[in-house]
Amino acid sequence: MTATALIRHLPGLIGQSVALRGWVVTTRSSGKIAFLVIRDGTGYLQCVIAKQDVDEATWETSRLLTLETSVEVSGEIREDSRSPGGVELGVESLATLGPSADFPIGKKEHGTAFLFERRHLWLRSRRQTAIMLVRHEVVQAIRDFYYERDFVLVDTPLLTGAVGESTGTLFETEYFDLGKAYLAQTGQLYAEAAAAALGRVYCFGPTFRAEKSKTRRHLTEFWMVEPEVAWYDSDDNMRLQEEFVSYVVARCLERCKAELDILGRDRGPLESVVAPFPRISYGEAIQRLRDLGSDIRWGQDLGGDAETQLAQQFDRPVFVYNYPRDVKAFYMKQNPADPTTVLCNDCLAPEGYGEIIGGSQREDDHDLLLGRIREEGLPEKAYGWYLDLRKYGTFVHSGFGLGVERTVAWICGVPHIREVIAFPRMMTRLYP
Amino acid sequence: MTATALIRHLPGLIGQSVALRGWVVTTRSSGKIAFLVIRDGTGYLQCVIAKQDVDEATWETSRLLTLETSVEVSGEIREDSRSPGGVELGVESLATLGPSADFPIGKKEHGTAFLFERRHLWLRSRRQTAIMLVRHEVVQAIRDFYYERDFVLVDTPLLTGAVGESTGTLFETEYFDLGKAYLAQTGQLYAEAAAAALGRVYCFGPTFRAEKSKTRRHLTEFWMVEPEVAWYDSDDNMRLQEEFVSYVVARCLERCKAELDILGRDRGPLESVVAPFPRISYGEAIQRLRDLGSDIRWGQDLGGDAETQLAQQFDRPVFVYNYPRDVKAFYMKQNPADPTTVLCNDCLAPEGYGEIIGGSQREDDHDLLLGRIREEGLPEKAYGWYLDLRKYGTFVHSGFGLGVERTVAWICGVPHIREVIAFPRMMTRLYP
Repeated sequence: MTATALIRHLPGLIGQSVALRGWVVTTRSSGKIAFLVIRDGTGYLQCVIAKQDVDEATWETSRLLTLETSVEVSGEIREDSRSPGGVELGVESLATLGPSADFPIGKKEHGTAFLFERRHLWLRSRRQTAIMLVRHEVVQAIRDFYYERDFVLVDTPLLTGAVGESTGTLFETEYFDLGKAYLAQTGQLYAEAAAAALGRVYCFGPTFRAEKSKTRRHLTEFWMVEPEVAWYDSDDNMRLQEEFVSYVVARCLERCKAELDILGRDRGPLESVVAPFPRISYGEAIQRLRDLGSDIRWGQDLGGDAETQLAQQFDRPVFVYNYPRDVKAFYMKQNPADPTTVLCNDCLAPEGYGEIIGGSQREDDHDLLLGRIREEGLPEKAYGWYLDLRKYGTFVHSGFGLGVERTVAWICGVPHIREVIAFPRMMTRLYP
Repeated sequence: MTATALIRHLPGLIGQSVALRGWVVTTRSSGKIAFLVIRDGTGYLQCVIAKQDVDEATWETSRLLTLETSVEVSGEIREDSRSPGGVELGVESLATLGPSADFPIGKKEHGTAFLFERRHLWLRSRRQTAIMLVRHEVVQAIRDFYYERDFVLVDTPLLTGAVGESTGTLFETEYFDLGKAYLAQTGQLYAEAAAAALGRVYCFGPTFRAEKSKTRRHLTEFWMVEPEVAWYDSDDNMRLQEEFVSYVVARCLERCKAELDILGRDRGPLESVVAPFPRISYGEAIQRLRDLGSDIRWGQDLGGDAETQLAQQFDRPVFVYNYPRDVKAFYMKQNPADPTTVLCNDCLAPEGYGEIIGGSQREDDHDLLLGRIREEGLPEKAYGWYLDLRKYGTFVHSGFGLGVERTVAWICGVPHIREVIAFPRMMTRLYP
């Protein structure tokens, strides 16, 4: 099969004859002229079929086309300032490649369950395609950000014996004669080992939480990027985060204009996302919330509503730092100035999107870390290698995890993160 | 903590005073002068300590340093043409940050099991660091190759109801009230759905095989990149593969010179890896093997030894195409010219590394595909969405999967793929 043109490239081919393959989006016909819009994944193209200019087979084909039929069209590319890409195609021939009877997703409103059950077909819609393209850009921006700064990618394992965040929300599987393996909730602990070898590293892969949660911010399988930096303290860590988030947002503003327009995303709030980000301590956050009428008390974790309330006070993401030790993970470094807190931060996105980053300086003192592992009742033996990092040349280090889906949802202005991954996994969904 | 210099950047800082943090690699001392090599993940630096130039504490510290102690040194960067980076540091002060008593990996030879049990520490070695840096470059090269060619990244799910390659080698986990979920062996089927939406796509993530295999080419968890292209046939597919593999190899030759030198990799064979690659049909491959004395017969799959024998006849990777239907997966397109074969190819790397790519044109005929699903006894319902792709505007399409670890092992010249991933997962290894 010879290569054919892609719709994206047509503006450079005005006046030329091309062949194209794609899928039917809309058809409209009068007695003598038919208009056909096709998509090929790289764009949308209006094709004009004049009855007098084509043979009978082509005209008949054009009248019978249905939604999502795959077709081959050929003809001349003409300038047309009214079209999205500035061109249209004057059809000389048209052939059906794959019929499509009763494509289940039409113009009418469908329920969410109906659409997710047909996610493999729903992905073809203009809105879903735009979201996937923004996600694609976000991921490449993440990779480029770290590559340009000489961070080394280290792929951490998904099948693990040790656990990261919290027991009780783990997927488990039998692992040959070695007992159970758990699906990783984070790559961080492994990234810490790699940081001692390579200095500045990041891991970036899928992570899992077997949480019985149905909020718009939760998936059971989601992607997370986790940088880990030798010799960074908590302040350095926040500086890296604000530089990173600003970079990703700026890149989408620069390269995803068309997609953000399709999604009806107001770019104004995104244009404010410039470092530095405001920083408030956990204590200040509690005071602010109480001033706003909340009855939250020092020591309680911030819930989604509290995060939204706080973030609404700022025009860009805000850091909340140094949470109480008891609401955070065992590996966070005790704050020497106030041992009831740890050196950590969350980064809350504006516009109600809440936490997109959780980060911390890591406990680098062997005995303090061992104490925390014991307090939490974690399996000491499984963490032997992790403790070793504090035994052989321990080092100040910090890192964080950014949730890709939450970030993409925020940038796209999409309310629920299930829409920003191709095949979302939720408590109630494993298909398709 | 203020930022300190990285070893990589020192050649630009000759004559300046800097502070550095890192880990002790070697120490050597005479009565009046001590030499200390430290590493920080970005390079190695020789530090020279003259007793007469430093205070007593620094001199004493220098005498007591042990392998992998973390230290802070400061002093002046001096040109030194004998050093690897062209510079050395004249120490003014030196402090231990984290002691390291009896670091378990020394200069003597250790057994493989011993080293993998201490993988979190072994990663700090010069050889392992070099391998990780090559892997890092390979992965970014892969991402850049597809990004530059407008392929859209689509992250496919790891928790799946449907299966990809073969039953019986799946890890499984309980999934809430939905029964069992399986860890994906491939993202291809999902990538096919995405190709109908976006034209040219790729997925790139970890994949799993619960195989009781102990060869040097197998891991239970490994990374695979899988492009899928609408309107590509099997020939287009092979052209994409040879362009892709050549790109990745060229990029490593260009950007990983130092690492390949550390690994003692002969660059000659890599420099031959230029498209086009030779292509032989499966039938020809059988004939060649028989001519070489093998008793292999038409219809049998090629084993690792046969692959090595074939690949040895060429100076670059070789394609073997159109295998018998019965040794290949159900989704491969029946060859219209010979229905006992399918339109597919493997790509065999030279120097005994064997298969690095498996690819095929996909069966786009609904009824033929359904027939194959039934023949294989696969759960028809779980494949309903996959069959839908042939029901609504079916399309010629092809794709392939390249195994990252096999590719990195080949480029590094490392015999066993377990060494080219930070924390390998094998039948007998889940720790660290």
